[in-house]
Amino acid sequence: MQVYEAPLRDMRFVLHELHGLDTLRELDAFAEIDADLADSVLEEAGRFSSEVLLPLNATGDLEGCHAENGVVRTPAGFKDAYRQFREGGWPSLASEPDYGGQGLPESISKLVEEMTCGANLSFSLYPGLTHGAVQALKAHGSEELKTLYLPKMVEGTWTGSMCLTESHCGTDLGLMRTRAVPNEDGSFRITGNKIFISAGEHDLAENIVHLVLAKLPDGPPGVKGISLFLVPKFLPDAEGNPGQRNGVLCTGIEHKMGLKGSATCQMSFDDATGWLVGQPHKGMAAMFTMMNEERLGVGIQGLGVGSAAYQAAVFYAKDRLQGRSLSGVKRPDLPADPIIVHPDVRRTLLTMRANVEGCRALGIWVAQAVDLSKHAKDPAARQNADDFVALMTPVVKALFTDLGFESASHAIQIYGGHGYIREHGVEQYARDARIAMLYEGTNGIQALDLVGRKMPSNMGRLLRSFFHPVAEWIEQNRGHASIAPLVGHLERAFGALQLATGTIGERGLRDPEEAGAAATDYLRLMGLVAMGFMLAKSAAIAAERVGENADETGFYQAKLQTVQFFFDRILPQTASLFLAIKSGKASTMALAEAAF
Amino acid sequence: MQVYEAPLRDMRFVLHELHGLDTLRELDAFAEIDADLADSVLEEAGRFSSEVLLPLNATGDLEGCHAENGVVRTPAGFKDAYRQFREGGWPSLASEPDYGGQGLPESISKLVEEMTCGANLSFSLYPGLTHGAVQALKAHGSEELKTLYLPKMVEGTWTGSMCLTESHCGTDLGLMRTRAVPNEDGSFRITGNKIFISAGEHDLAENIVHLVLAKLPDGPPGVKGISLFLVPKFLPDAEGNPGQRNGVLCTGIEHKMGLKGSATCQMSFDDATGWLVGQPHKGMAAMFTMMNEERLGVGIQGLGVGSAAYQAAVFYAKDRLQGRSLSGVKRPDLPADPIIVHPDVRRTLLTMRANVEGCRALGIWVAQAVDLSKHAKDPAARQNADDFVALMTPVVKALFTDLGFESASHAIQIYGGHGYIREHGVEQYARDARIAMLYEGTNGIQALDLVGRKMPSNMGRLLRSFFHPVAEWIEQNRGHASIAPLVGHLERAFGALQLATGTIGERGLRDPEEAGAAATDYLRLMGLVAMGFMLAKSAAIAAERVGENADETGFYQAKLQTVQFFFDRILPQTASLFLAIKSGKASTMALAEAAF
Repeated sequence: MQVYEAPLRDMRFVLHELHGLDTLRELDAFAEIDADLADSVLEEAGRFSSEVLLPLNATGDLEGCHAENGVVRTPAGFKDAYRQFREGGWPSLASEPDYGGQGLPESISKLVEEMTCGANLSFSLYPGLTHGAVQALKAHGSEELKTLYLPKMVEGTWTGSMCLTESHCGTDLGLMRTRAVPNEDGSFRITGNKIFISAGEHDLAENIVHLVLAKLPDGPPGVKGISLFLVPKFLPDAEGNPGQRNGVLCTGIEHKMGLKGSATCQMSFDDATGWLVGQPHKGMAAMFTMMNEERLGVGIQGLGVGSAAYQAAVFYAKDRLQGRSLSGVKRPDLPADPIIVHPDVRRTLLTMRANVEGCRALGIWVAQAVDLSKHAKDPAARQNADDFVALMTPVVKALFTDLGFESASHAIQIYGGHGYIREHGVEQYARDARIAMLYEGTNGIQALDLVGRKMPSNMGRLLRSFFHPVAEWIEQNRGHASIAPLVGHLERAFGALQLATGTIGERGLRDPEEAGAAATDYLRLMGLVAMGFMLAKSAAIAAERVGENADETGFYQAKLQTVQFFFDRILPQTASLFLAIKSGKASTMALAEAAF
Repeated sequence: MQVYEAPLRDMRFVLHELHGLDTLRELDAFAEIDADLADSVLEEAGRFSSEVLLPLNATGDLEGCHAENGVVRTPAGFKDAYRQFREGGWPSLASEPDYGGQGLPESISKLVEEMTCGANLSFSLYPGLTHGAVQALKAHGSEELKTLYLPKMVEGTWTGSMCLTESHCGTDLGLMRTRAVPNEDGSFRITGNKIFISAGEHDLAENIVHLVLAKLPDGPPGVKGISLFLVPKFLPDAEGNPGQRNGVLCTGIEHKMGLKGSATCQMSFDDATGWLVGQPHKGMAAMFTMMNEERLGVGIQGLGVGSAAYQAAVFYAKDRLQGRSLSGVKRPDLPADPIIVHPDVRRTLLTMRANVEGCRALGIWVAQAVDLSKHAKDPAARQNADDFVALMTPVVKALFTDLGFESASHAIQIYGGHGYIREHGVEQYARDARIAMLYEGTNGIQALDLVGRKMPSNMGRLLRSFFHPVAEWIEQNRGHASIAPLVGHLERAFGALQLATGTIGERGLRDPEEAGAAATDYLRLMGLVAMGFMLAKSAAIAAERVGENADETGFYQAKLQTVQFFFDRILPQTASLFLAIKSGKASTMALAEAAF
């Protein structure tokens, strides 16, 4: 059963109690944000997700998108839902006020994204890419382009797309074939074919603004010869309204494992008119502004679907009667006990729950750092926040999406054979969640980004933005009255992470393949330690407040128990990961290509 | 790309070099089996899988099955493929000769099953259930039933089904509602509704023989009141040919995540005529003859799909050009290197490969024990083999299917975004493989079977059938000239398994929930140790033969490298599993039901 309800209590915990809005409220940009405003935004977003988006999730999967003669029709109900989404002001939530945005912090916006993704991942792709496109355009576009496009994009009347991939190149964009030729008026003619373009064409918005990577005639070979262009579906007329149709066409949509309500388009650019965004040949840098934004967003997709899958699994585990508790009949009034009495069912549910709560806490930490990196008054604080975001972006993207898919698969398992049947709705979560491990850079690419770029960057300065607060907190809490054992566990796991970092750093200097062979295990190790840190901090808060207020005791008790489960049953994975990393690259690289 | 080719060289290694046919050839039943016969069967099965079954895999997924008015049509080509399958004598391969079987060992038959499942999992379900039905009928049916049904079933002219599940009961069959009322002629009238009946109705065979669980009027409540009945689709006439239609009807088929070429039927029994199989109220025991057989078969399904997914991933990793090797350009003639040069891609491929090879070696060990349990001359040897099969059945079922699904997901990852697109064929492997973790008892149920039934059975006697050979081999090979380090790793992992066994055994005696909370981690721990044992033994053989023959050096070298990878990167998971088990049930059981 798809039963998504936004987990508002835990979201408030993460926002107010764990991270706190105070740090942000000291910044000019967020001086007006208070807890009540944040809570009412979350509450309203929760209602919208459950009432408007959730009912279209399964129907959208069943119906899919339709493409004919370049026109793409989204599933029944999506158009009306998007209209409500836009009218409700949701697209502009975290955009800065200069182009009409509401200027809310990323931390609130990411919680709202979690809800949207939890209720309807396919739907989330339509507004989802616009936000990143807005960021890229703001950072790199000319004033003229910004004035013309940003207000419409911020309000969601026009949506964005990100056109990178071609059939023969995804990760390796240096192989790109799409070309841009200058016109005399300063615009360019773009020609080429792109694939896997989410929301490249649809019927939800009056215009679509494509950000397209292409090569200029004088561009050097490889990724250093790539530039970024803005190519609208309709060329704006003198009043800035959609005018003449541009030379860009959707030639087909993909038939995918899931995410069927989201149109994944093949796009053909045929002398399409475009405008340069940023400097010539510096398209990769401009695109990465958008890409990094999207990578955090994709992590949140994993979290959202994981949370929805957890809720579906809990619903069924309380409802399904099968067998009797090993510690004696629990429901003599029923022919059997609900399966939630069984230890292995609880273990599965708690695994999902602990991972969801750990990811949420970590994700909002990073989101808060995004805001600090832009708005902190102290340049050192901005730099530190920026370092942290850069370091954690690949971790959030890969860890959250791996765990989101795992949670969806766990939900299927809780349903038994019924989980495999379409009408129960949980197999859709697995099919939908699977994409998030692939797009915006596969999770393997995230791991390489972590060990190859982020870890060695500035002599390890990025690492310190994470290691220092962890070390400091451990130091302060080693003798904690109620959670000292958790702190001890965290310290051991953190020790393993530090050792692994040293090992990879040292070996990787000599031989980059050593870092490559360790990358995925290292990312997971860092992710588990980061979740462990967030959850241990959460436990410290919960331990303090558990007795304060009878209404809230249940929540804090549950938090403590969930954290304990994470430390007992999930964090120990760090031990194996450390051993695997330590073994080095030899056995990964030995087998001859022909022998595979 | 779906490119399945039976991995004959590794299959021959496992059959002849690792386990050897000699033990079986000492038995009267298999005196005639020699290596040439085995190899030619495997080769022919490989050809059949690649040429006949593989081409129908993707088309069957796309088309699915069709049900109308009780008639089920399989996807185009399945009917002809099944005819060829039957004419080729494949259904009767491992059936004993008394009813027309070819009497080949299970070890050969299971390798053939691996190929069938690797080429076309959906197809494998049609003949797959017949073999188990034959076993149940042979063991528990009356002479009259056996004479009438077995020859047709063994030759595959008639197929079997297994009708257990009802919508409200799967694991907990005590809740069953289907009823059987005695007729005066010794037959029974069966009435009730069953769901999830694989091959319950189809167009491949002239008759379908349902083995149906139902309650007799005088049956005690719960599972002790369940009896097993044979209910044919068509009642045989005086000549034993399909005659009058029986009161059993397919009322619909399920829309599933995958396995779409296999008809999963809702069956309605309406005063259908059936015959008792075995004793009244002893249906569960009779059904378990079939179920245990099926559970091993389901494990082999995971192995087959995992192997196919590995091959698909290797094909793509050698073909897809993207980026350059970290150790310098490998293919200057091409615009980029094939992605198999990248350490993280190799890590992924080797994970799949090592798991496939480990499962194959373990699966055939168990299959050989099935034969010994039936045919060994010495009763103690029969008992020991039977113990081993009983112990390992849940491990094979759960471990192989978990890893099969993981492999399929890894294959998607190797394909990047293309893996998510239907036409590449690998997302189908994930959708298909997912069912195997659920049916014939979810993997959680397998784990409970292991810790709750098998582990304590006969004061741990079943465990000894596995622990003794492992301990003995470690003892003999501790100082092995070339693989001593592997033996040391295995010894540590085995030590963790023994400690975990003691911990669970001791705590579980006091409190069965302790065993339940540890079950899944324990099953994986035992599975990893069993794979590690098989792979270490394989390495010992490979180390001896690697220099013997130039043509074979590549194979043995690859075996050694694959085993090393398993010990470096996969076996260390035992460390984490041990820690998780040791933590006990407390944090699994603490959270109140309402707090989930």
